[in-house]
Amino acid sequence: MAETGRLIADMAKRARAAARKVANLKTDIKNRVLLSTAERIIDNRSRLQDENKKDLEKGKTKGLSNAFLDRLELSDKVIESMAQGLKEVAALADPVGEVTKMWKRPNGLMVGRVRIPLGVIGMIYESRPNVTIDAAGLCLKAGNAVILKGGSDAINSNLALASILQDSLKEFGVPPDAVQVIPTTDRSAVTEMLSREEEIDLIIPRGGEGLIRFVVQNSQIPVLKHYKGVCHCYVDKGADLDMARKICFNAKVQRPGVCNAMEGMLVHKDISSQFLPTIGEEFKNAGVEIRGCPETTRLLDYAKPASEDDWGQEFLDLILAVKVVDSMEEALDYIDRYGSNHTEAIITKDYQRARRFLDEVDASLVLVNASTRFNDGGQLGLGAEIGISTSKLHAYGPMGLEELTTTKFIAFGDGQIRE
Amino acid sequence: MAETGRLIADMAKRARAAARKVANLKTDIKNRVLLSTAERIIDNRSRLQDENKKDLEKGKTKGLSNAFLDRLELSDKVIESMAQGLKEVAALADPVGEVTKMWKRPNGLMVGRVRIPLGVIGMIYESRPNVTIDAAGLCLKAGNAVILKGGSDAINSNLALASILQDSLKEFGVPPDAVQVIPTTDRSAVTEMLSREEEIDLIIPRGGEGLIRFVVQNSQIPVLKHYKGVCHCYVDKGADLDMARKICFNAKVQRPGVCNAMEGMLVHKDISSQFLPTIGEEFKNAGVEIRGCPETTRLLDYAKPASEDDWGQEFLDLILAVKVVDSMEEALDYIDRYGSNHTEAIITKDYQRARRFLDEVDASLVLVNASTRFNDGGQLGLGAEIGISTSKLHAYGPMGLEELTTTKFIAFGDGQIRE
Repeated sequence: MAETGRLIADMAKRARAAARKVANLKTDIKNRVLLSTAERIIDNRSRLQDENKKDLEKGKTKGLSNAFLDRLELSDKVIESMAQGLKEVAALADPVGEVTKMWKRPNGLMVGRVRIPLGVIGMIYESRPNVTIDAAGLCLKAGNAVILKGGSDAINSNLALASILQDSLKEFGVPPDAVQVIPTTDRSAVTEMLSREEEIDLIIPRGGEGLIRFVVQNSQIPVLKHYKGVCHCYVDKGADLDMARKICFNAKVQRPGVCNAMEGMLVHKDISSQFLPTIGEEFKNAGVEIRGCPETTRLLDYAKPASEDDWGQEFLDLILAVKVVDSMEEALDYIDRYGSNHTEAIITKDYQRARRFLDEVDASLVLVNASTRFNDGGQLGLGAEIGISTSKLHAYGPMGLEELTTTKFIAFGDGQIRE
Repeated sequence: MAETGRLIADMAKRARAAARKVANLKTDIKNRVLLSTAERIIDNRSRLQDENKKDLEKGKTKGLSNAFLDRLELSDKVIESMAQGLKEVAALADPVGEVTKMWKRPNGLMVGRVRIPLGVIGMIYESRPNVTIDAAGLCLKAGNAVILKGGSDAINSNLALASILQDSLKEFGVPPDAVQVIPTTDRSAVTEMLSREEEIDLIIPRGGEGLIRFVVQNSQIPVLKHYKGVCHCYVDKGADLDMARKICFNAKVQRPGVCNAMEGMLVHKDISSQFLPTIGEEFKNAGVEIRGCPETTRLLDYAKPASEDDWGQEFLDLILAVKVVDSMEEALDYIDRYGSNHTEAIITKDYQRARRFLDEVDASLVLVNASTRFNDGGQLGLGAEIGISTSKLHAYGPMGLEELTTTKFIAFGDGQIRE
């Protein structure tokens, strides 16, 4: 424990020192590091897969699930997609240095706000080694140093990836401490990391709700987090039912295991007897289990009655809670109570109710007539994302490069003093 | 303790419910509440001063210092300035609803970011009852509900101010739970408040470093904080020494007890023998104690030798640490080591070094040729401020109305689904 504490303190201090250099790197150097890493990842495929095999074999012996091992594997496809991701990040505009505003004060002082890196970012994530590359690429492009603590079961893979990244950093004269993977699987490394408030500016945890709650409870450093995605579609009276059917089906079925999939569907009573049987048929054919309110089970004989626990549940599976509502107010109250501030959609033809839904729903993305599945940095046009924040401070929604920066004030004077 | 827990939980839930209403108030209603409160404060002056007298008398019996009692007093001047402050906030533009960006995706989806309130803000502050009004006014204008926990010694004053605010809220049909003062002096109220992560979106502590560290260590809610202000002026070689003299004198002497006052002065060796004796004479006449490096004490016989503790010290008094540096690099390293990311100024005539200082110094405000005393929301043109953040997440520097909001994504579709 004491040894891990010293290790983390040392890494944090080195990251802080490196951050000062990385903050002022030219865009071109950052891009060359990213592109060179992309090449190295492809060139070192077999070395990476050898290290990854060690993790996979240990995992198998340990009896980890196939789904877990699947996420752990550095397959050819994953390796190519990591390299491709780095190329895409290199192609994005550099957010650092943008003057977001500038104005002149009555005393002649020119005051502006300029975008700067956050400094040192700590990533804590589970055993998906591709996060090591994706996160490091984004942090670096935004001018930050990063300390990565991946899941213990991916330690060999992560260290191999870090060494490749560091080779690229060194090639362009960037301090290799800009990207560090914590080399121990000691669990206390996480709490030690969460206490380095002086050196680390932001913690981003990625993983299950348990991991994230642990991080929030133990961190003295600000945390950008996302507990869960309980997303709804509200099908308004008078909605285009064909459009509603396509959107709801897409939101539930296209990829049910992700945070922006629909978990609850609210249907206005005026159209429920028309809408539910048709969409119900489609859901049934797609293997979606419906858990519904009494009106839903009356209209759909294959639906099961919902229990209180089903409202607001994040199923991450082919299961859907369905409720018929008497009014838009009831839908808004339901979303306020059971939603998770992630993604909420209305399907409507009514201009006034579309505006009201946009105004009143408190979620990181509120959509009119489109699928909840669009809550994603790439889909919304941010280029790439390091996660989705459902808390409101600093970032609310997908976090792209801009969200990995902040602004400082600058002022150009010619001798101004305060009276 | 259990009772306080229930009290705080109940207040937090009521604040959360009120926040949903306040978020969608028309600007005009918010302004009328503010202006009506300003009037009521003046009209109820004697009632406020009676309640304040109870606090002052208890404080005297308790043996509180004169400076403390001074901050606690609701003098005529303080009452007028609270009312004036509310009028100024009413005159500011409403940040809520601003669409900060909007763009069209290739699939036709119109995606935008719109400014929304944070939700519920918790203010924790010491015994300055004017903060109750200043903070409530800003929070309300930005569409937030607020829970205020002032110092125990100001409890009667704060409750009287809250009841005035709530009268104004009721007058315009706004839920009075939008502004609540915690009515107990039980110390556990603070920790209970810091645990209400589900209802409170942001904690802003204002007070000494001890209070702020306590809040950071115990909060599961994001905290916007400012530990201390250790601000420097670096007088570059070739600077306009007359300008440097005016700026440094202003930064140190105009109001030494505040966070944006200069605590350390760095002087390039090429101009130190010219500059230090003249500014030294002025400082001496103003009663400023100088604690200097050996070169400083050699040039200024009245200067005391600095100890290591003096570098980076927040004196908040007529004391100044002075160091002669060999180069700009040394100044930058010094600021990196001893600065507090608050405010840093360079006085120079050199274009290239001005740019370099602006780029490389990591502080919430970096100035060229102007006094550190400008780091203030009003002075920089934000209208009013609720505090200054020296951590980088969400806000770095003075926090005005905009910093009491966040943005959500909105998307206008016409049936888009994810492929």
